[in-house]
Amino acid sequence: MERNLPPATVERLSNYRRKLKAIDTEDTEYIHSHKLAHIMRINPAHIRRDLMLINFSGDIHKGYNVENLINEIGKNIDCIRKQKVAFIGIGDLGKALAAEFKSKDSMLEIVAAFRVADNKSNEKLDFKCYHLSKLKQVMKKESIDIVVLALPNIDTKEILKTVVESGVKGILNFTSAHLDVPDDIFVENYDMVGKLEKLSYFTSCG
Amino acid sequence: MERNLPPATVERLSNYRRKLKAIDTEDTEYIHSHKLAHIMRINPAHIRRDLMLINFSGDIHKGYNVENLINEIGKNIDCIRKQKVAFIGIGDLGKALAAEFKSKDSMLEIVAAFRVADNKSNEKLDFKCYHLSKLKQVMKKESIDIVVLALPNIDTKEILKTVVESGVKGILNFTSAHLDVPDDIFVENYDMVGKLEKLSYFTSCG
Repeated sequence: MERNLPPATVERLSNYRRKLKAIDTEDTEYIHSHKLAHIMRINPAHIRRDLMLINFSGDIHKGYNVENLINEIGKNIDCIRKQKVAFIGIGDLGKALAAEFKSKDSMLEIVAAFRVADNKSNEKLDFKCYHLSKLKQVMKKESIDIVVLALPNIDTKEILKTVVESGVKGILNFTSAHLDVPDDIFVENYDMVGKLEKLSYFTSCG
Repeated sequence: MERNLPPATVERLSNYRRKLKAIDTEDTEYIHSHKLAHIMRINPAHIRRDLMLINFSGDIHKGYNVENLINEIGKNIDCIRKQKVAFIGIGDLGKALAAEFKSKDSMLEIVAAFRVADNKSNEKLDFKCYHLSKLKQVMKKESIDIVVLALPNIDTKEILKTVVESGVKGILNFTSAHLDVPDDIFVENYDMVGKLEKLSYFTSCG
């Protein structure tokens, strides 16, 4: 399957699916784009365009069949094989994220985590936990597909170099550092500060 | 000051500022939009439009003065008075987020957190921690401006009702629940699952 949907569409499709799954299909077998748009707080035209991209069309009177749409989104965005994920940084943030990963039945599987701090904690985790000094060795051995950077804002340059050389395909970046990586590595920045400043802008009385 | 910039512009301005602050102004006094665009991985036209919205223009030959631009963004997006923030949920995720808040010198001040679990932990936090049953009482007393929902995915309906009635102005939502609130409350959804699914889509071999 080609990966040629626009990034923003993939994110919205994932979001539609989550909202659709929350609908009780015994009551609501079909949904209109404007109704889904209202739930999503976006423009109905956006939804129609996104669904056109996956060749999904609704009934002109009844709207979209909820169950079929859920399945069709899955066929288009879910990956076929499990992908291996490694966490770099497994403090409060790393642990919270790992729990989030696990709670979704996704195709992403956490196979390793790397501690930055020297002290070994006694906590039980569902995956192997290594010291950061083992990064290079473990990344190669486990053929990691995706790295989650859940570090405090320390210098990531050396870490990034090792990660890139290991042949990783994607990075989910929770640091506020700008990651300078080759174009064939997909980087998703999870920008917490930007969201905070936006929120503060729109709630301040001025 | 009117709050009339588009949400996406505010988020980008915040991001520009962060990147600009990382530049050594002893070496780089001026920056061109295409250079900043490259760092941001966005289109230069976007940057020019955003800066037009805050009436900032560069030198036609040298580009934008980095220091002036940083200051001008601040004048436009920073709020003037401290805003009071309460966390609902203070587990791994809540604690990680609170640490993130603190590490930025923002105008957002955490004044309270609410525990969902019954057991009281012995950890030291920099703000008062209450049981969720005190939500209504404390929200009123402290005149909370912004609530951060950092809960596991439990039913948020009752909590949300109390939060809305308390007169909150903004909600930062880390749950995957859809929040049905009046239009004058600014909601920012921090969609973790969507990001994960997007990453998995673009890194899977298909």
